[in-house]
This record gives sequence, C-alpha cells and structure tokens, in this order.
Amino acid sequence: MKRPSIILFVLALLCLYSTNVLAKDGYKLWLQYEKIENKELAESYLNSIHQITIPNHSATTDVIKNELSIALKDMLSTFPVFTEDGIKKNNIVIATPESLPWLDEFIGQNQLDGLGQEGFIIKSIQYKNQPITLITGNADAALLYGTFEFLKLLQTHQSIVDLNIVSVPKTKIRILNHWDNLDRTVERGYAGSSIWNWHLLPDHINQQYIDYARANASIGINGTVLTNVNANALVLTAAYIEKAAALAKVFEPYGIKVYLTARFSAPMEIGQLKTSDPLDEEVQKWWNDKATEIYSYIPNFGGFLVKADSEGQPGPHNYGRTQAEGANLLAKALKPHGGIVMWRAFVYSENTPDDRAKQAYNEFKPLDGEFESNVLVQVKNGAIDFQPREPFHPLFGAMPKTPLMMEFQITQEYLGQGTHLVYLSKLYEEVLNTDTYCKGPGSTVVKIIDGSLENHQLSGMAGVSNIGSDRNWTGNHFGQANWYAFGKLAWNPYASSEKIAEDWIAMTFSNDPKFISTTLDIMSKSREAAVNYMTPLGLHHIMGWNHHYGPAPWITDKHRDDWTSTYYHQAGSDGIGFDRTSSGSDALSQYSPYIEKQFSNPKTCPEKYLLWFHHLPWAYRMESGKTLWEELALHYQAGVDQTTTAIKKWSTLEKSIDNERYQHILSFMKIQEKEAKWWRDACLLYFQQFSKLPLPDAVEKPNKTLEDFKNYKPHFAPGI
Amino acid sequence: MKRPSIILFVLALLCLYSTNVLAKDGYKLWLQYEKIENKELAESYLNSIHQITIPNHSATTDVIKNELSIALKDMLSTFPVFTEDGIKKNNIVIATPESLPWLDEFIGQNQLDGLGQEGFIIKSIQYKNQPITLITGNADAALLYGTFEFLKLLQTHQSIVDLNIVSVPKTKIRILNHWDNLDRTVERGYAGSSIWNWHLLPDHINQQYIDYARANASIGINGTVLTNVNANALVLTAAYIEKAAALAKVFEPYGIKVYLTARFSAPMEIGQLKTSDPLDEEVQKWWNDKATEIYSYIPNFGGFLVKADSEGQPGPHNYGRTQAEGANLLAKALKPHGGIVMWRAFVYSENTPDDRAKQAYNEFKPLDGEFESNVLVQVKNGAIDFQPREPFHPLFGAMPKTPLMMEFQITQEYLGQGTHLVYLSKLYEEVLNTDTYCKGPGSTVVKIIDGSLENHQLSGMAGVSNIGSDRNWTGNHFGQANWYAFGKLAWNPYASSEKIAEDWIAMTFSNDPKFISTTLDIMSKSREAAVNYMTPLGLHHIMGWNHHYGPAPWITDKHRDDWTSTYYHQAGSDGIGFDRTSSGSDALSQYSPYIEKQFSNPKTCPEKYLLWFHHLPWAYRMESGKTLWEELALHYQAGVDQTTTAIKKWSTLEKSIDNERYQHILSFMKIQEKEAKWWRDACLLYFQQFSKLPLPDAVEKPNKTLEDFKNYKPHFAPGI
Repeated sequence: MKRPSIILFVLALLCLYSTNVLAKDGYKLWLQYEKIENKELAESYLNSIHQITIPNHSATTDVIKNELSIALKDMLSTFPVFTEDGIKKNNIVIATPESLPWLDEFIGQNQLDGLGQEGFIIKSIQYKNQPITLITGNADAALLYGTFEFLKLLQTHQSIVDLNIVSVPKTKIRILNHWDNLDRTVERGYAGSSIWNWHLLPDHINQQYIDYARANASIGINGTVLTNVNANALVLTAAYIEKAAALAKVFEPYGIKVYLTARFSAPMEIGQLKTSDPLDEEVQKWWNDKATEIYSYIPNFGGFLVKADSEGQPGPHNYGRTQAEGANLLAKALKPHGGIVMWRAFVYSENTPDDRAKQAYNEFKPLDGEFESNVLVQVKNGAIDFQPREPFHPLFGAMPKTPLMMEFQITQEYLGQGTHLVYLSKLYEEVLNTDTYCKGPGSTVVKIIDGSLENHQLSGMAGVSNIGSDRNWTGNHFGQANWYAFGKLAWNPYASSEKIAEDWIAMTFSNDPKFISTTLDIMSKSREAAVNYMTPLGLHHIMGWNHHYGPAPWITDKHRDDWTSTYYHQAGSDGIGFDRTSSGSDALSQYSPYIEKQFSNPKTCPEKYLLWFHHLPWAYRMESGKTLWEELALHYQAGVDQTTTAIKKWSTLEKSIDNERYQHILSFMKIQEKEAKWWRDACLLYFQQFSKLPLPDAVEKPNKTLEDFKNYKPHFAPGI
Repeated sequence: MKRPSIILFVLALLCLYSTNVLAKDGYKLWLQYEKIENKELAESYLNSIHQITIPNHSATTDVIKNELSIALKDMLSTFPVFTEDGIKKNNIVIATPESLPWLDEFIGQNQLDGLGQEGFIIKSIQYKNQPITLITGNADAALLYGTFEFLKLLQTHQSIVDLNIVSVPKTKIRILNHWDNLDRTVERGYAGSSIWNWHLLPDHINQQYIDYARANASIGINGTVLTNVNANALVLTAAYIEKAAALAKVFEPYGIKVYLTARFSAPMEIGQLKTSDPLDEEVQKWWNDKATEIYSYIPNFGGFLVKADSEGQPGPHNYGRTQAEGANLLAKALKPHGGIVMWRAFVYSENTPDDRAKQAYNEFKPLDGEFESNVLVQVKNGAIDFQPREPFHPLFGAMPKTPLMMEFQITQEYLGQGTHLVYLSKLYEEVLNTDTYCKGPGSTVVKIIDGSLENHQLSGMAGVSNIGSDRNWTGNHFGQANWYAFGKLAWNPYASSEKIAEDWIAMTFSNDPKFISTTLDIMSKSREAAVNYMTPLGLHHIMGWNHHYGPAPWITDKHRDDWTSTYYHQAGSDGIGFDRTSSGSDALSQYSPYIEKQFSNPKTCPEKYLLWFHHLPWAYRMESGKTLWEELALHYQAGVDQTTTAIKKWSTLEKSIDNERYQHILSFMKIQEKEAKWWRDACLLYFQQFSKLPLPDAVEKPNKTLEDFKNYKPHFAPGI
C-alpha cells in the first residue's frame, strides 16, 4: 500500500500549498469552494456526481457549467463531465421542464407553476431505477439559483441524498443600490472606490464585474442600481448608457438586470427643455424618448430608482406636484418596455417644521392608490435614517394600495462604517418580524414587503451596497456577511439570521464546528453591542457631522435642525429623549392604534425604543429598578464589554483559518473596541453635563475630557 | 513504472488547478514564482538547495526566509530546510562577513568594501570540498537583495552553478514618489485610489503594504515618499506621523525608508507661526523641533521631498529667498538625524515671461554650491513635464557642485495614462545615455545621476509611482513593467532596457521563448509608437486641458500661456514648432556649446527634437526628402499602425498565458489603438487648418470633423 501514501503525500503538499501559501484575501467571498478534506464525505459527493446533464443551451447554462467546473475542481479535485442527454446512474440533471419530457412523472404541473420564473426544485429521484439528482425550474435563471443552492450543500458539508428542496423567492425585485458616483467616489462607501470603472467602460470588462454577478446570483439578487440616488443626469446620456449597457450584457446571463438613478431635472440638464414639470407634455415626451433610447441599448433594462425632493435633489415639489405625479411621469415612460420605478419615500424638508420622522408618512399616505402599477415606493426600514436601531417606518401598513419596497442599508453608515463587526441581518430580521397591526395582529412588516398582506404582484427589497474596490470587496471581511444575508433575506425574508450566518461562516471560512459556533456567537451579539455603545434605549442620530463617523451628541445650531444631534436627543437638566407622544410631536399617531397605545406609555413602550418616543427625567425608574441615567451608562458599558469579549473569542480561532484574514479581522475588532470606548466616553461625558450624576461603579471612567472629544476632528473620514 | 505516472497525473491536476482555476489577476506582479514544469531543470535546482543556512538573526533575515519559503514552494514544491550553521554539501549560505569567519578565503576585504551596505555577491564556491552557493553582503538588506537576485535566476530558468555575481547599486537613493493625497485620491493616478489607507492607519496593517515592500525590495528600491508633492501640511501633525510610522515599521525589514513631502508653509498652517520665512529663527526652530518629533516616531526616517514655488505651492519666493535658502532650512533640521532633502527643480512661474523650458535652469544654476550637503536637487528628465519625448533637462551638467537626482515619471500622465502599453524604460534609457558634453564627450546624464562625473557621495533616482488600489497594482498590466524597470535602472542606470524587459516578461508571464520574444518586440516599439501618435518630431504639451487625457492642440487663451497647447506648438500658416534657438527663446544656450551648435541648425538637430527647438515651414524638406507636413502626418499614421501591429502580435499569444490577463491586456490594447487614432485624427485635422495641405495617401482619413473632436469633453477623466 505504498502508492496511495505517495499520492496522499502529494495531495497533502497540494493542501499545504493552497492553505498556507495562497493568500486568502477574501476576494472569493462565500464562494471559496474550499477543498473537502473529509475523504468519506468527498467520496459520497463524487458518487452522486458521475455526470452532469444540461440539455438547455444559453448564456446562463454556460455560466452554470462554468460555476460547477470551478466549484467541483476546487472542492473535489474533479473535472465534471457535462452531457446534453444520455442520463445515467448518479447523474445530476439540470433542466427546465420543456427539456425534460418525463419530468411530470416526478413533479406536477401545479408545483412547477408555483415556482414562477425564478423558483427551483432540487430533488433526488429514481429515473429508470437509477438515482438521479434533479435541479429544475421554469427558466434558466432558476436553474442557476438551484445550482448555487446545490453547491451550498457541498460547501456546508450537507448530505446530497434524498433531497427535496423547493425554493421560490418571496419578493420580485431583489436589488442592490450602489451609491456610486461617476467619478468613482462612493457616498457612504468604506471599501475603497467604486467597482464601476466608467472611464474604461464599455471597452474594458473587468473580471470583477463577472465575479460580482456570480456572487449576487449565488444569493438570488436579480437587480443592481449602478448609480447614486444623489444622481448625476449624465448617466442618462448616450455615452453613459452605452457603458451601462456593457455591464448589463455581462450581468444578463446571471439573471441580473441593470437599473439607473434618474435625476428629476434631467430634461433641463441634459435635454434642452426649460422645465422638468411632470405634467408638462414635452417633459413626458422627453422621458418617453429617453426610455426608448435606453431600451435600444439595454433591452432588459430594469428601470429607475429616484430620490426626489430630498436633501437638495430636485423633484415634483419644484412644480407644486405630488410625489405620485413625479413617479408616474417616469412610470409611464418605462411601462411600454416593462420597466419599473422605485420611488423613494425618503422625502423630508428643512422648511417643514414638523418632526422629521413624520414627514414621509404625511406626504405619501394621502397618495396611496395614485401611483401607476409599475411603481414601487421604496421605504427605509425606519423613519429617520438607518440608525443602529429604529422602530419600523410608519408607512409600513399605511399604504395598502401601493406596493412598498424595503430599503435596508448594507453599508454601515451609522453602524461603525468600515471597521465594526456588526451582523446586520439581526437588524433586518427585527424590522421584518415586527407586527404593524395594520390589519390586526400578524400584519408583520415582512407580509407588507412580500406583497402577501395586500396581494400585490410587485414586491421588492433594496440593499444599499457596501461593495467597493477593496480586495475583499467590503473592507471589513464581515461586511461580506451583510451582503450575503441581505440577498438571502430578499429571497426569503422569513429566513433565520442565525441559519444564514452559519452557512455564510462555513462557506467563507471553515466548516469546523467550533469555528462556526464561536463566530456565530460573535456575529449574533454584534448588532446589539453596536446599539449599546452607540445609541442605546432609543437614542438616535448623535453621530459626527457630515461624515457620520464617531460620536458627536454636541452637534447643534447647524443650518438645519434636523441634521443636528441635540434635535434628536433633547438632553437637558430635565431629562433626555424625543417626545413623540401626543404631548410631543405625536408621531406615534402614525402607527396603528394598538401600537400607539402600547408605545405611548413609557411603562409599556419597549425600552429599546424608550427615548425614541419619550422624554424622561434622568431619575426615571426603569424595569430593572435602576434609574434611566444608570441604565444608559450601563448599556454603553455593556456595548464596550461585548466588543472586548468578541476579541477574546476571536483570538481562540487563530489556528482555525488562514492568517491573513484572521489578522485582518483582529485588527478591525481592536479598532471597533477602541471606537466603542470613544462612543461610550464621549456620550456619557456629554450627557453627564445634564444629568449631573456620577457614573455607576461598573462603568469604566473616561481618561479624556469632554473637551478633548469635542476638539477631535477626524480628517478625510471616508464615505462622503 | 505505474507509480510515477499516478503521481504525475496528480501533479498534472495540480497544474491545471493552478493554471486554469486560480485567477491570475496580476496581484503577484513579477513575483509569480510560477511552478517550474521542466523536470530536469527543477531537479538541478533542487540539487543545489539541499539546505539554506542563515546565521544572522534580524527582521530582515525573517523576510529572507519567508520569501524563500514562498518562492521555493511555488516554483519547486519544496519546503526549504533552514539552519543557522552546520554547512553541508549543496548548501545555500546567506550571511554577512561577520557571521562567516572563513569568508576571506573566498572573497577579499577589498571586494567586500566595494559592496557598501547594499551591494551583494552570489558566488558558487567549494567549501571544505563541498559545493556551496554563497550570498553575502555587508548588511542584511544586501542579503535580501542577493536573495531576490538568486530567485530571479530560478524564475528565469537560468543556471545556478558556477555563479559569480557582484552587484552594487550605482545610486544611493532609489525611491518612489507617490502623488497620493490624504483623502486617498492620487494625482495622476490611473490605478484606483491610494494604497495608503490613512483612515485605518496605524491600527490596521494591510497585507498590501507588506507585498508592496516585497515588490520594491525585489528590485532594489530603498525609499518611498508616501505623499503628494502638492503637499498637505497635516501629514506633519502627530496623528499622521504616527500613521506614517506604522508604515515605516512595516517597510524597515525590507530596507525601505519612509519620506514625507513637506509643505513650505507648514509652520503657519499647523504651527502657530506668522511666517514661514526660511531665514526666520523661529521658523528654523519649528522645523528643527518638527524633525526631532518625526524621528521620535520614525527613527529611520528618510527625509523630505519638497515642491516649492511651483504651480501654486508656497516656497522661499514668498519671502524673497532663494531655493537654496529654502532647501537649507529643512536640510539643517534633518541633518542631525541623518535625513536628506530632495528639493525639486520643477520651479516655474506664470509671472515669468520667459520660455518655461528655461526657468528652472535660470533659477537653479546660479545657486550651484549653495546647498547644504544633505540636499539633492531633484530634476525631471526634461525641462517641460514628462512629455512622450523631451531633450534632457539643461540642468544636467550645469550644477557640478550639487548632486542632482533624476525624477522620472512612472505613471503615464502624458503617455496614455491608464491604458496604453508604453514601456517607459526606453524613455529612461534614452535620457540616461544622452551625452551632455558638459565636461567634454562622454559626460552622459547617467554619470551625473550616479555621482561619478563630479564624485558626489549622494545620488538618487526618483520615480513618480503608478501604483494604486487596483487588483493588479498599476491598472495596466504593463504598468508593472515600468515600475520594475524603474527599480532596476535606479540600481543600475547602465542596464539594458531590453534585458530588463526580458526578465520581467519571464517572471511575470512565461518563460516560453516565443512569448518572451513577441512580448519584448511589442514593448520595445511601444514608446516610439506613443511618441508617433501623440507628439512626433519634437512636438509637446498638446494634450487635454487639466486631465491631460487625449489630444487637444487647440487649447489656447487660458489664464496662463504656459499651460496651453498653442504656446508650445506655435502652429500657423508659416509653419510649426517652438523656436528655442538664439532667434527665439534661446533655450539652447543653456546646453553645452557642442549641443547648442548641433541643435541650433535644423539640418543637424536630431529630427526627433526638431519642433522642440525650431519653428519651420510646412514645406520644410526633411532628411527623407518629404516635407515636414508629410513627415508629420506619416509619423502619426506610423504610430497608429504600430498599435495595430502590436494587437496582431499579442493575439498570437492567446494560448500562452492565463485567459484573465490575456483578455485584460487585449482590451487595453484595443483602447490604445482607438485612442491612437483619436490623437492622429484630431492633431492632423487641427494642424491641417494651418498647413492647408492634403494628407499623404498612406494616411487613413479621419471619419470625424475637427469640431467633433473639439466638442468631445470627457467627463471624470481619472488622475486629477
């Protein structure tokens, strides 16, 4: 038995080679396709993959073959045999129903109909008494999704016998929003510059575009808005449409459509028109022509995303028109081509004296029913702006006639930006599972988003991308988890964050159970930690001016109140918190009566939202029996402690993965711990001015003064 | 003989694995350490590397061991055995003389003295009748350089028996100038954003910093200026010095020192001073203290690079002081710590009516002998600004008492920017080998640069970096060759560009002789091609406004003449060219009489410089017998033709290398061809307005009008 040992030795060399020498820089994301070292497991997989039959021919099936080749070579050191027919024992068959006349023996028409164009089935069957693994769906994109799901089983070391997986996406539009500018800067981007090299498009197709499409398709994302919502009209000129078309062509085989942001004033800026009034016939014609032009370059163009009448962007307000009139202008232009409009509800005005949290509701609710059928209103998860924790946006449940899309932020503008390990899926899950009570108990946000509550055909979920030119895509390696989880939740918003994280950890790093459980523990607690060391108990919007980096509860007296910190925390000698009850801004009246009642009473309002809705004295007695001041201070301390604990746990994993990613992550976690202390100390010193109370013993004492913190002005903080 | 065949099969799998699946994205630069497939060759190498003995202990010897481990594992699938002593047969010994008491048996003290602190010897010896390969030098950095040279032999499949290599750098300071801003933009950068992530420094050390140091050490670069010459004084504040110190610590084991750019007005901007007058005692004290502060953070700090009194930068002119007084201010502050000042001669003023090409000479020549001993005057290769071709700068040879450093541009600001394949070593070589005649024939530029002509101790060569965050470092894969060649020429400015290119091609892509010869042919002709399609016959500075992208000979009437195109080409109905003879600006009088005489007569002036020095009628008869107009047009056409030919040649190499790099390069070459045509057509149509002559038959006719070209305004061209 000498021969195998020599082979094993060579294989061992190969392993060492791939584990130690090749840098794991994170570029491969969760598609690492790590070699399966467990020989028994690898053999069991190889036994089921004697041959892969794909009768369909398309760019998408080429992508499927390519992905299987990469994955099986890397994981199993095998070169898959592809055929178009001739099904054998232990065959994988990847086909749509029209290519498999015998499919109805195994899967009924009803079930196939239920899959739509994107859902898939993975089923172990006995075809002519031979065991076969079948991956089917009604379109090639569905086959691609099924293939990635199948590969995930291998990546996570699951069994692939007796499979019976049926997976249908719950939302139609699963889309990334890139806040990327044409000069390659990225608003709120913390991972280098934009991956879109507009200057070299359409002539140069970077490999990264292809790998971007692979990664997105692997998690079911089917759309991408290439450009910033703070839009530049130039992207609608022929030269840029041609560039966008080159990307659209790359993405099409992956089932991904390209969308662009439309600047409302484009007819004046790049057309020759004197107005952009949505009710002006010339304006409507301009947009109609523009849509026709775009579709001539990009036949599968997805549509427009629009930020209007918000933070300086032009919009229908400029002409005394409603948001619906604005949205419908574009919707009418796109409708003949099958395009959609995603119209953002993030509309608020510095000239409106009302609570900023109320303005979107006030403006959009009356318009319910007035939007064209190809319009989705895109609503941020909360009414302010992607804070570490916000109550759900009151528009959810308030516009039954209008399909509302969820807008989550994947980039961590307010959650530690480039460096903090914060698993955002916990935030997404919390919002999605919240009951709005809009149609009685069980009217959860997720049922509004997936269209099931009001039986809407259109539905969607948007994630503001955290992707940049950094070698690991997201700067922070754990930023990849947020991209991954967003895609998975967009496909199935009922999924469990923890299960998603488990898969991601295994695919990205290691199947070692200890590694998975430890990392999962760190991730699971990370979002609560960030809330604790940044904005516990319902505090919000107390971060640094403009760049939003670090704590700055002292920001005040700026040109608009609703961009200051003092506007939101209202701290004074009498207490702290924003009164949104009927005695205050009455924002609570925008929620269903059940919620309004529960939240209006500080004793029944969940403490995690307490200071969002209530202004309370420092000595207010919390559930724990401690005072508000004490609880606040202890929450800040708990947040810091959680970052310290996370580092200790991560340090136990040093030998479990490659050194490059281990060290990268460790250095980021140390930055996070340092910045958590910065948040705790700066905020507590600031609030202590008003509470005039000592810090509880359990809280570490600051080693700087409030003035030190106020005087610290970071230069060139990224993301603006 | 079944067993070996199975092993070979597994090895073949491994090869396929590494060749096809692992993306070759260019990140590894010329340190690909490609597996040596020639079994005989591999065995011959393995026979000479039974053991590696390194008695010295330092961070640098750790680096040496690490590099050998990576390289030998990748190239020979072997894990080198390291020892500290116990020299055996077929041993590699890497050691300084003090660690090898018996060294004088083989290498004399004189020879060792001649190595300085950086030179090395690689010598095959018989020690106690055993064949040994010795790598020695007087300091650990020299051992590192020797190790990289030894590895290069393996990478290029050379013999490693009977070695006797002695290599001593000809220049002291071999340095990259990064025009990188603190916000991560890069002036004239075409490869993404800055690799320096100031925001995360000093806490996060990116793997790229280490790989940057490896790459630079492998080509002998021993210094890096981290920041833009258009300087921000903030980099001299404690927070940024601490960040720079973290980089310095990473680079130190690689023999690389960190330098910073010093903004002349820093004492006022970040100090509390009311002046930055170099003769003011308080100012001197401020810089003295600042130097002391910097050295407290960075004990091996290299010194300052300064751009003063140029293009808006503050400088000694603001106080009526000379460039020497300015430079000496900083030199005095650095001298006690061993630091140097690199003071740029790129000084010219919009208020000086004289020919811009003359101003640096006029200002600096009278100051010869007035600079402190730790000052180098850094002079660009030509008197204007890194044009595709310039005559050598008249300061070379004009300041015998002052060490002059060469400043080459590696980034291709004027040579096709991010996309054009232009092997710049040909440009560097042309300048270095030019005879200035300043001390009679043989007074070449290279002898001024290396200090040998005037026996200067200080000497140096600076290269303006083309490195950015792009995955392949330089955007264009062939940009790597320019970085590589710059380092090699800085070490030995007498080296041959073609030999340098051969090594680079083999190390970066393939040792296949056909691949090397074809690629070498493309590279060797590329610079002349660029001159031809951009600025043939001595034309210069006719590129796009501000971004310098593409042709724009029509630029005129800007706020300063010497930033326009018409100022330089002087085209009119009477002819074209800038008269720099005594009848014109008399710039020629700045050169030695021999050159002045030769260049003053258009018949003896090299035609490649003709329009740099002469204004000549369109009908002027050239050496070829053709008119100037015809020659001009034919040169433009020849440039385009060369790009077309290059594509054809490259296309024959499709199967010779990995597809990712092959396609990347091909798409860039197609952009280059398109832009070469743009240059040809725009320039010829523009000049034709004045010549009023038809294009020669051999010249392809433009399919756009001059107005089309003038109206094309590229948006967001990178690099500004």
